[in-house]
Amino acid sequence: ASPQAPVAPKDGGLIWVSRTGLCGELSSDDVGRRVRICGWVALHRVHGGLTFLNLRDHSGIVQVTTLPNEFPEAHAAVNQLRLEYVVSVEGIVRCRPAESINKKIKTGMIEVAAEHVQILNPVRSKLPFLVTTGDEGKDGVKEEIRLRYRYLDLRRQQMYSNITLRHRVVKVIRQYLEDMHGFVEIETPILSRSTPEGARDYLVPSRVQPGTFYALPQSPQLFKQMLMVSGFDRYYQIARCFRDEDLRADRQPEFTQLDIEMAFMPLEDMLKLNEDLIRKVFLEIKGIELPDPFPRLTYAEAMSRYGSDRPDTRYELELKDVSDVFMEASFKVFSDTLRSGGIVKALCVPSGAKVYSNTALKKGGLYSEAIRSGAKGLPFLKVLENGEIEGIPALVSSLGPQKRDLLLKRCAAASGDLILFAVGDPGSVNRSLDRLRLFVAQELGLADHSRHSILWVTDFPMFEWNDSDQRLEALHHPFTAPNPKDMENLSSAHALAYDMVYNGVEIGGGSLRIYQREVQQKVLEIVGISPEEAEAKFGYLLEALDAGAPPMVESHMALTDW
Amino acid sequence: ASPQAPVAPKDGGLIWVSRTGLCGELSSDDVGRRVRICGWVALHRVHGGLTFLNLRDHSGIVQVTTLPNEFPEAHAAVNQLRLEYVVSVEGIVRCRPAESINKKIKTGMIEVAAEHVQILNPVRSKLPFLVTTGDEGKDGVKEEIRLRYRYLDLRRQQMYSNITLRHRVVKVIRQYLEDMHGFVEIETPILSRSTPEGARDYLVPSRVQPGTFYALPQSPQLFKQMLMVSGFDRYYQIARCFRDEDLRADRQPEFTQLDIEMAFMPLEDMLKLNEDLIRKVFLEIKGIELPDPFPRLTYAEAMSRYGSDRPDTRYELELKDVSDVFMEASFKVFSDTLRSGGIVKALCVPSGAKVYSNTALKKGGLYSEAIRSGAKGLPFLKVLENGEIEGIPALVSSLGPQKRDLLLKRCAAASGDLILFAVGDPGSVNRSLDRLRLFVAQELGLADHSRHSILWVTDFPMFEWNDSDQRLEALHHPFTAPNPKDMENLSSAHALAYDMVYNGVEIGGGSLRIYQREVQQKVLEIVGISPEEAEAKFGYLLEALDAGAPPMVESHMALTDW
Repeated sequence: ASPQAPVAPKDGGLIWVSRTGLCGELSSDDVGRRVRICGWVALHRVHGGLTFLNLRDHSGIVQVTTLPNEFPEAHAAVNQLRLEYVVSVEGIVRCRPAESINKKIKTGMIEVAAEHVQILNPVRSKLPFLVTTGDEGKDGVKEEIRLRYRYLDLRRQQMYSNITLRHRVVKVIRQYLEDMHGFVEIETPILSRSTPEGARDYLVPSRVQPGTFYALPQSPQLFKQMLMVSGFDRYYQIARCFRDEDLRADRQPEFTQLDIEMAFMPLEDMLKLNEDLIRKVFLEIKGIELPDPFPRLTYAEAMSRYGSDRPDTRYELELKDVSDVFMEASFKVFSDTLRSGGIVKALCVPSGAKVYSNTALKKGGLYSEAIRSGAKGLPFLKVLENGEIEGIPALVSSLGPQKRDLLLKRCAAASGDLILFAVGDPGSVNRSLDRLRLFVAQELGLADHSRHSILWVTDFPMFEWNDSDQRLEALHHPFTAPNPKDMENLSSAHALAYDMVYNGVEIGGGSLRIYQREVQQKVLEIVGISPEEAEAKFGYLLEALDAGAPPMVESHMALTDW
Repeated sequence: ASPQAPVAPKDGGLIWVSRTGLCGELSSDDVGRRVRICGWVALHRVHGGLTFLNLRDHSGIVQVTTLPNEFPEAHAAVNQLRLEYVVSVEGIVRCRPAESINKKIKTGMIEVAAEHVQILNPVRSKLPFLVTTGDEGKDGVKEEIRLRYRYLDLRRQQMYSNITLRHRVVKVIRQYLEDMHGFVEIETPILSRSTPEGARDYLVPSRVQPGTFYALPQSPQLFKQMLMVSGFDRYYQIARCFRDEDLRADRQPEFTQLDIEMAFMPLEDMLKLNEDLIRKVFLEIKGIELPDPFPRLTYAEAMSRYGSDRPDTRYELELKDVSDVFMEASFKVFSDTLRSGGIVKALCVPSGAKVYSNTALKKGGLYSEAIRSGAKGLPFLKVLENGEIEGIPALVSSLGPQKRDLLLKRCAAASGDLILFAVGDPGSVNRSLDRLRLFVAQELGLADHSRHSILWVTDFPMFEWNDSDQRLEALHHPFTAPNPKDMENLSSAHALAYDMVYNGVEIGGGSLRIYQREVQQKVLEIVGISPEEAEAKFGYLLEALDAGAPPMVESHMALTDW
């Protein structure tokens, strides 16, 4: 018994034909060959009794021409075509006439002389925009229209490359982890129980048990710890994660991360494994050589120098603490705050004095950015050609020559530079100057795009003070191990957690895990979870930690951010 | 700036050590080498002043012994150990004494003489069952206990293999699709709109737009069609799918399938691509050679011969239509039904007459199975040694010698065989005999487990009658293409849909897609969806079909069923 083969339908019916190859892969090597190619009409013009078209598939385009005398039917069929029709073309590959050779594309030496042409699917609607091969037409089309007709937008070669980039990155990751390091890919459930992480869970009502809910996982967190307790040793997953947060440009309700958990691996090995992976991806996918090893910055140093735990180091613009300069100065805005325990930090913008007029500094974009960051104003000074300073009069007059020189030296400020200040508690000062630093760098185009800033940020505090809840909370999450050195004073301990930062974006990280019940319980207590609550929420984990949990280490990489 | 390295903690603290290798990979080649291995205590015994233990990780076990005189601290530490403690052992690999050599395992020639032993994590709870290396202990432990303490159950080598099987299968699939056939893996969203498929959707309430819901996809169905319209040509995904159905042994709320969609590929190429893939997986993972090509059965033939569209052909037991035998016979149960358009089919069980007593046939398991299948009873005949038949008297007496011989010949029944009957409309007759066939095969152990039954079922009807809704519905789904030959009478058309059946389980399938708006609209109309409703539900798809949709073909493989 064999199935009935589909017969060739009459015109306009469904038909499936075989290709001999792809449009964009034909070349001079194929001259004289009979081919059948399928694709979309990308260009269509009549010229001197002949009709030309470009046929496009995902591999590229090839020129098709007609032979009106030898193959009048094919010629007539080609004349009926319109842009984006789906067609099958059968014919002989031949050299293009010298005047139409295009050396820029692979198929530019040849064309296909059509002998048989079938319309597989016509276009009956008026298309809202042209499918161009490059990015050229993009700017003319609104984002909403491109998204509304995404199936057209994605036909462009550029969009095809964007979408397939993920595929190529993941392929390199799999090779590295599976073939070089023996990792096993394991799928963990999507319909699961709520896990305690930073964001809101998406909930799925259960039909079978009314009133109960599944939660979509914010990460495979607990599952992967259980896998380590089960002895799986080296797990990875390209894991879908869900966070019910308000949409932002860099936050989507669902996203995908590379998720790794390893047993019996020490810290430096984990960092090296991640570095090597990222170096390999950048080299193989983008041809970029990243440093070996990656530079490292402690959290404290990153905050001090950049006001941020994810600094973009493609440009300098480092923050300087100038509290001592103003400690006894007469500028009350600063000195009052300093006396009550605050700090003053400065950001020196090279040649910024000419770029930003005094008016701009008092109500322009930079000023608005300062206000948005929570600052009450934007104190500034400009260094004049003669080495004098100008700016807010009370600020200028508060500095004698000695203090002024100390300030300029501290900021490495030269004539023509602009110095911006922030004052207050360290958190808000850093927050303000981080934003101003990014804003200025963006506006002045300071980032050298041929440079790549990649680094580890290390030694995060385990806990930070949540002022509105009046309690300590975990900076990463409460399963991160404290540095064993800090066990005596756990609430101020550093965490064995590491963030990987690329061009100012956190693209991944890793941490050692708490793997002993006793330590886990202490940490939960510090973030205000009572033993009873811990038992109710994490009883399963605590029990597992007591049943032979190995030392574990996790790492993760965002797949959407790079 | 470099991060602070974790220092060695005092006993009982967190510690991460480096391994030199894995327990199960040590061999005679390593004799004399200093190693550090980490794992779980799998066996622990004191014997003649020495202490032995087996240390286990995912790679296997290795024997560890002590040197009480040379390394008394290590000896003392080993004595403290208990089963499933997590430890690090440093020592020298040496040959085992001749009397303790175990040739059955890779590490059976050697042992590690412990010089330094660290407890990384003790076990403080009483474990509910032993972690055995093989399957031996399994039967003694209840399923619920094994699931409750799944992290212990998964430590067994057998469970490790089960879980990693998926990984190995997926790896073969990826190699085949990506490296040999140029497929691109593309992730489609999980939070999406409801798609029209067979089962109930899981719904996720939106917080941002109260009263609206996301649906979790039953398959990537519409996304992958859109990808083809966008020109992606060859897509695949290891896709998570969700169906809110009541739990059954073979139905879970979420499952994973290999999901494929291809443009411009004809039927036979698609079938061959899938066959080659499955042959490769079976060969590489299980060492099984499947036939090339796979046998094919039309839907009509499968229903006629096996009463099922997923027949297990490892055993014969074919159904025979014997309606003509009973057409004019006096057995009213049969003849009345035949006159009103029903049929009678028979299932001959070789040597079944002795296995099933008359009492069993009137109220035993086989009888119950018939009733559960919806039959009103279980008519049967036995063929005696002398060639006579016995059974329900009215049935026996209704058959003269000629009809009896015709019946026996039709069923290829010999003395000692049992013939079971079902009567009614074809649907219910097939349903009953399919169940009885599986039941008998299971009970008599008819399946030859060295055989592998794999086949395509072809030529499904496009539509089947839904009696409760009084309308036609799509047998697969309403996007499957009808055979172009059948376009004139679409409502009775065959679908270009193919199921792959392995040992009686549908493990995958493929179908050509409707890719023209006009045909799609006609099919939707037949299943009772008005043009307005079609526009509301599938407007986006219909619009895309009109904007240059290529001929498309899909296929899918369950990853949980094999």
